[in-house]
Amino acid sequence: MNSTPRKIGILGAGGLGRNAVSVLAKKTEFLPVALVDSKGVAYRAEGIRPADIEGLPIGETVAMLAEIGRETSDPVGEILKLNKAGALEAVFIGIPNLPNDNLPRVIERLCDGGFRGVAVDALKRTTAVEAVVALAPKIEASGMVYVTGAGATPGLLTAAANLAAQSFSEVESVDIRFGVGIPSWESYKATVREDIAHMPGYNVEAVRAMTDADVESLLDELDGILRLEGMEHADDILLERAGVVQAAKVTVGGIVDTRRARKPISTHMTLTGVTFEGKRSSHTFTLGDDTSMAANVLGPAFGWMKAGMELRARGIKGLFSSADLMPKFVR
Amino acid sequence: MNSTPRKIGILGAGGLGRNAVSVLAKKTEFLPVALVDSKGVAYRAEGIRPADIEGLPIGETVAMLAEIGRETSDPVGEILKLNKAGALEAVFIGIPNLPNDNLPRVIERLCDGGFRGVAVDALKRTTAVEAVVALAPKIEASGMVYVTGAGATPGLLTAAANLAAQSFSEVESVDIRFGVGIPSWESYKATVREDIAHMPGYNVEAVRAMTDADVESLLDELDGILRLEGMEHADDILLERAGVVQAAKVTVGGIVDTRRARKPISTHMTLTGVTFEGKRSSHTFTLGDDTSMAANVLGPAFGWMKAGMELRARGIKGLFSSADLMPKFVR
Repeated sequence: MNSTPRKIGILGAGGLGRNAVSVLAKKTEFLPVALVDSKGVAYRAEGIRPADIEGLPIGETVAMLAEIGRETSDPVGEILKLNKAGALEAVFIGIPNLPNDNLPRVIERLCDGGFRGVAVDALKRTTAVEAVVALAPKIEASGMVYVTGAGATPGLLTAAANLAAQSFSEVESVDIRFGVGIPSWESYKATVREDIAHMPGYNVEAVRAMTDADVESLLDELDGILRLEGMEHADDILLERAGVVQAAKVTVGGIVDTRRARKPISTHMTLTGVTFEGKRSSHTFTLGDDTSMAANVLGPAFGWMKAGMELRARGIKGLFSSADLMPKFVR
Repeated sequence: MNSTPRKIGILGAGGLGRNAVSVLAKKTEFLPVALVDSKGVAYRAEGIRPADIEGLPIGETVAMLAEIGRETSDPVGEILKLNKAGALEAVFIGIPNLPNDNLPRVIERLCDGGFRGVAVDALKRTTAVEAVVALAPKIEASGMVYVTGAGATPGLLTAAANLAAQSFSEVESVDIRFGVGIPSWESYKATVREDIAHMPGYNVEAVRAMTDADVESLLDELDGILRLEGMEHADDILLERAGVVQAAKVTVGGIVDTRRARKPISTHMTLTGVTFEGKRSSHTFTLGDDTSMAANVLGPAFGWMKAGMELRARGIKGLFSSADLMPKFVR
């Protein structure tokens, strides 16, 4: 990497998109120059800073931002124009997973619009990642490197599972248990709604029909704590695609506390397998309790973005996942 | 990968080389066809099986093996001939780390001899890996993909440190603590001698001057337990080279029990860093106690070999390390 920072665009200005600006403020190799949401685009060639978006209420569009924001009816088109002009070479896609065709539509637009560069998502749901995987031929035919499932889980913990698998002749199971603590649900409305959709008795449609007041009353009932089992997380298909283990042997569960920043349990991945000597054993990867969801999703995402840039520089393009690629540390 | 197994050579017929044959007996994608040591070569196109080497006393040459073994004064030359004939496309180098120029001489020979394929080592010492890194231009100019430090530590735990780093803005330290239990030192003489060289008051020269009886009497004195601190393991330079952390902030230590197969402590890697929010925290990666050194070194080594094969198929060559590449699971 040379000393000129690589210029980055961020799609989505919810909790993840905004935190992405803060993560990159601590990095010298990457500079966020554009931030778009469904109604607006904010752009500054010298970089968007955390102070720029500090006062923006959650739910409001970046079009409102002083100096740098304006309205647009075509945010992806704005990204394509900036990419064509050489103003940005990579995008982090932090838009909501739901509805499931949300992201595939954006990817198709990037492909059709001739996006040249690297795109990375932090998708969670198996069905959403399956829709991305179905676009592999289109991505391959474009000039893009695309890394899917490149957040925390799938992402950091999927990669850890692929690593852990190496010691074994056969992998019997991968279990991912996460703990998340957020001080209030307001900053992560889309994410909390997705979590609720994973709970017994709920699904995507049911959650879409809930008002914010309905969500709040459910959270009141549960003292803010969501217990999730058998979650539909794409770690399963990504590990199967990497040849590590059948998707059915990968389980994901967790506890989300929507009222306290402290994690209710340590997030960890346990892989159990049998060695060549016939011994059954488990490797574990445990995340520090004082690392936030934002740190564990966004840091890895930018690490995979850098890995994608290195592949592109070597003339490689196409679709990769967090189980295939080693992320590169962004300074 | 297609259904025809990829054909592999193994350099070194000590504990690691012999176990490599057993590890590959559980895999269908890779087939070990050649095994060489300093005095002999064993070759069978249909594969060398664990039963072939079962009765061979440690310290004896593979030239003695019935049907498949013969003497040679040029084992690396035999590997080169097999590679040229299309009889093998990758080698695992499991020769002793000491003396430090042992391996670089083999690599130079492979480069000069026109080896086309993938080579992987499980070197441990920083100085040994530095000597390999110094050969990067020569390796790049050859048709080879070479993966160095691709065992357990450096290797599996170095890769885990690179992964763990992704959640942080700054990495403050990486500490690797390993526990090894082996039923007796006789099967791992070279490795145990290397471990002793890491102990306070010992060095490479002092250990070379020790007879086997000297080593045994030292082990008697210590009840077979070697406590190692501030070890010279190449995790440090590989993580620095990957841009993760300065080499001086990486520490490696461990406890080796040379008389009991049970590990005296769980082998683990702890990475401590500061997140973008300014929080200090640690991620850990812990290996299952019932996984042997052989499983944790050899499984990952073959995983990196497969990753190297994929790079070569894409037209990429040169030197990589366990901190750069994601290993691929070998079925």
